[in-house]
Amino acid sequence: MDLTGKHLIKGRWQASGREGTFQAVDPANNESLPTEFFNASLDEVELAAQAAATAFATFSHLPLEERAGFLDECASQLDAAIEQIVPRAMAETGLPELRLRGELGRTTGQLRQFSAVLRRGDWKRVVIDTAQPERQPVPKPDIRLTQIALGPVVVFGASNFPLAFSVAGGDTASALAAGCPVIVKGHEAHPGTSELVAQCLQKAIETCKMPEGTFALLHGPGRTIGAQLIQHPAIKAGGFTGSIAAGRALLDLANQRPDPIPFFGELGSSNPIFLLDSALSQKGSEIAQGFVGAMTLGAGQFCTNPGILVLKEGKDSEAFLSEAAKAIGEQQGQCMLTPAIAASFVKGNEKRQTAKGVSVKAFGPQGQGNLAQPVLMAVSAQDYLADADLQEEIFGPSTLAILCDNDEQMLAIAASFHGHLTSSLFASNGDEEMSARLSSVIQQKVGRLIFNGFGTGVEVCAGMSHGGPYPSSTHVQSTSVGERAIDRFVRPLCYQNSPQALLPLELKDDNPLGIPRLVNGVWTSEPL
Amino acid sequence: MDLTGKHLIKGRWQASGREGTFQAVDPANNESLPTEFFNASLDEVELAAQAAATAFATFSHLPLEERAGFLDECASQLDAAIEQIVPRAMAETGLPELRLRGELGRTTGQLRQFSAVLRRGDWKRVVIDTAQPERQPVPKPDIRLTQIALGPVVVFGASNFPLAFSVAGGDTASALAAGCPVIVKGHEAHPGTSELVAQCLQKAIETCKMPEGTFALLHGPGRTIGAQLIQHPAIKAGGFTGSIAAGRALLDLANQRPDPIPFFGELGSSNPIFLLDSALSQKGSEIAQGFVGAMTLGAGQFCTNPGILVLKEGKDSEAFLSEAAKAIGEQQGQCMLTPAIAASFVKGNEKRQTAKGVSVKAFGPQGQGNLAQPVLMAVSAQDYLADADLQEEIFGPSTLAILCDNDEQMLAIAASFHGHLTSSLFASNGDEEMSARLSSVIQQKVGRLIFNGFGTGVEVCAGMSHGGPYPSSTHVQSTSVGERAIDRFVRPLCYQNSPQALLPLELKDDNPLGIPRLVNGVWTSEPL
Repeated sequence: MDLTGKHLIKGRWQASGREGTFQAVDPANNESLPTEFFNASLDEVELAAQAAATAFATFSHLPLEERAGFLDECASQLDAAIEQIVPRAMAETGLPELRLRGELGRTTGQLRQFSAVLRRGDWKRVVIDTAQPERQPVPKPDIRLTQIALGPVVVFGASNFPLAFSVAGGDTASALAAGCPVIVKGHEAHPGTSELVAQCLQKAIETCKMPEGTFALLHGPGRTIGAQLIQHPAIKAGGFTGSIAAGRALLDLANQRPDPIPFFGELGSSNPIFLLDSALSQKGSEIAQGFVGAMTLGAGQFCTNPGILVLKEGKDSEAFLSEAAKAIGEQQGQCMLTPAIAASFVKGNEKRQTAKGVSVKAFGPQGQGNLAQPVLMAVSAQDYLADADLQEEIFGPSTLAILCDNDEQMLAIAASFHGHLTSSLFASNGDEEMSARLSSVIQQKVGRLIFNGFGTGVEVCAGMSHGGPYPSSTHVQSTSVGERAIDRFVRPLCYQNSPQALLPLELKDDNPLGIPRLVNGVWTSEPL
Repeated sequence: MDLTGKHLIKGRWQASGREGTFQAVDPANNESLPTEFFNASLDEVELAAQAAATAFATFSHLPLEERAGFLDECASQLDAAIEQIVPRAMAETGLPELRLRGELGRTTGQLRQFSAVLRRGDWKRVVIDTAQPERQPVPKPDIRLTQIALGPVVVFGASNFPLAFSVAGGDTASALAAGCPVIVKGHEAHPGTSELVAQCLQKAIETCKMPEGTFALLHGPGRTIGAQLIQHPAIKAGGFTGSIAAGRALLDLANQRPDPIPFFGELGSSNPIFLLDSALSQKGSEIAQGFVGAMTLGAGQFCTNPGILVLKEGKDSEAFLSEAAKAIGEQQGQCMLTPAIAASFVKGNEKRQTAKGVSVKAFGPQGQGNLAQPVLMAVSAQDYLADADLQEEIFGPSTLAILCDNDEQMLAIAASFHGHLTSSLFASNGDEEMSARLSSVIQQKVGRLIFNGFGTGVEVCAGMSHGGPYPSSTHVQSTSVGERAIDRFVRPLCYQNSPQALLPLELKDDNPLGIPRLVNGVWTSEPL
């Protein structure tokens, strides 16, 4: 698998070359990696969008079994290319081999999961209300409801999961499953990984004879081609994982279109951890070890990284913080994804250290180059509440412990939070009342509420929700992980008094797909 | 039931009086109706929003049975007040008595339907993935997914359905069902009707002992208090039915918030009707009669009014148009909702008559005052495609027939449309192929596809979808009518490894609500 540095458009690797080139950088040594990648031109954006629109008419109407088979084939092609993909991803991201092998498994697992979702069919959310021709004063028509694909989708790859949240990641898998052609705007930090993955998808397209515009990969800067893509009339939705600044800029463009389109961005989150009294007292040491593991996992570059700790000041908090400090001091330095991310991490920590009332409780080993130096800081609840900047996420292994005087202050801290992806409550015998009070406050702020555990390691399953109130996501009613992610790329379509011949399979009387349907108010998988 | 002209805030009728007053106008004679209504001040917006936020904590966590009982009580109170509500609504809207009695029935029907939805419980979309503590390499946690209320919702009442899409209409019913307190910005055209309906809701709140901030009604201009409400930090979503201009302005405000919120607006739609060859030839006369009935129903002021006809030019189209023209000439003049709507209707028709290639095929009887004069115009497909203005909705009984030369032109017309709520295909034996081709194009443009019928008379049932691509709605993935409307006001919340005591009822092992749940990939209503 050689790298071309070109874009994949209409099934061909092509590049006009008019917009210049860029190279990936190995964050381990700041050296440029081989292969020049072309920036896409507006013409290439246009060509990809047109091809996606053309493919949509066919791809969205394929039998579910064919689309499921295509997703399975994408997964098989990726599995077969693991020895090519992992080394390039290691060089482009500084992430370790084991992690990337695991992430590829997660990526193929997601593709296969959506093929299973397609076959199960309940994502169609079928409702059938049969006709009542005799009803007075007017007859009731036959009304049938299904979900159809939105249209071509642009996906913005994330830097921190170069496989599972990038070219063939969850956004792409769920959009393809829904029947939407996908154009990926590849992340500039890992263009080689992106191309290798796109080569696998292209092989699957050819093997399964999918329309040539089903998938495209474009390289180039978000502020130009990303902006062009999200504003293109043929594009009907966007998926994004990344920073608040970049995500908000794209969201605003999507909203300002003549015809606004949904934009599903997963932005920033600090995933507050609440340590309740008994848990802190009884299991503080164990939690401290788990916390430092979660905080430094992947150099703290997880969406669900615990960036905030909330606990009561006292001897238990002192013991906890000193245990955590000791563990942080023993961490190995880990390379961050890009020089820019590493610089931004340093800058964020420097700023926070000068904020009123903030003290540093622990530094990890001094990092060199792009190695992250983990930092644990602390602040009183009062100072935290007085300084809105302290709520800003620092992307990387940096956590702020907020020390409270009492339960009411802890509840006030919870109420002050903007949206986060997750929050964790550590509770033990004796914490029941506070658990209940805190849970009812914090559930308004997050998409996932975790008990006695950390948010890192997002389970990819039917019941997962990975989203939350702004700014953790731009669309509080959606998830970007788990089976429900397919909902983002479909919309309801109602058929009234349709002849059987024109109904999609899931709405036909005889229920050929055998899926569960709400028929006249009763759930059943039987034919009418 | 006396009118106070005040706002309902925190269970009290109050008004500072600082922002002046306005009166309703009877569109039948342009005379002001009794009772001065106060415009709300910013203080009053603030008070209502705070009260809604306070109520939310309690109201959103009520047992479903209690919230269902409250919705039923709202319906009963409205039924009991029908003799007060209908005469005031007639005076404020010019709509006839029978229509308004029917609309009140629809309104109470919607409230009762959502109480049934609450009891059925499947709107919670529960998923349970149980733990696998032995799984390698890491244990699988227990993951449970439900839907929770978004928060306080602002609802903008519509002028054209002063009951079913206004104070206690579908938006309010579905938001209350979801567990969201509601603040209604009453429509300025029917403030007396709004107050009478709000009095009923307040009685229900008192009877059922709901929190005092559960419901509020504020009077005043959309550009001031509407804008303040949609931007208020306590407000978490908006519901709206009205014009594209007003809806887009509110959508933009919702999108530009520091924390953007979902705004569910149902804006403009012309609901294209396609008459295929055999249907036109075999049933043209019957369809023409039905068409004129749908076009003039409620003075054409339905969201689903057929504003566009697409058919092939020839002797059948001539016969159809002359039959329709004759029926239009025999229509009784009907009063429009407001002097402004009547003026806008006249202006829109005057503009269209001067567009290139447009000819008038029929006028209804000359209207006096605010009576609408129905108009049927025609234009060639070629001229239609060349003039984007012709796609603009004219609110009222005005229809544009687009005359095509062949099937391809008809398909091109379908492909040129922006979003509409509905489209109808009239097809008969021999139209099968064109039906299928057209159906696959037009389904991308609408939320509801109707065969051999008109969109007016929206069935309120589980399978209804009343929404569509922009500008028919601001949120293509939602419906404002039917049971699925509740989805607009909820969002997913995931519980990970939660103790049973802290789980909401629908997620508990023993399934006390007895609702269908997806447990480890299988739908069941059994306990775990």
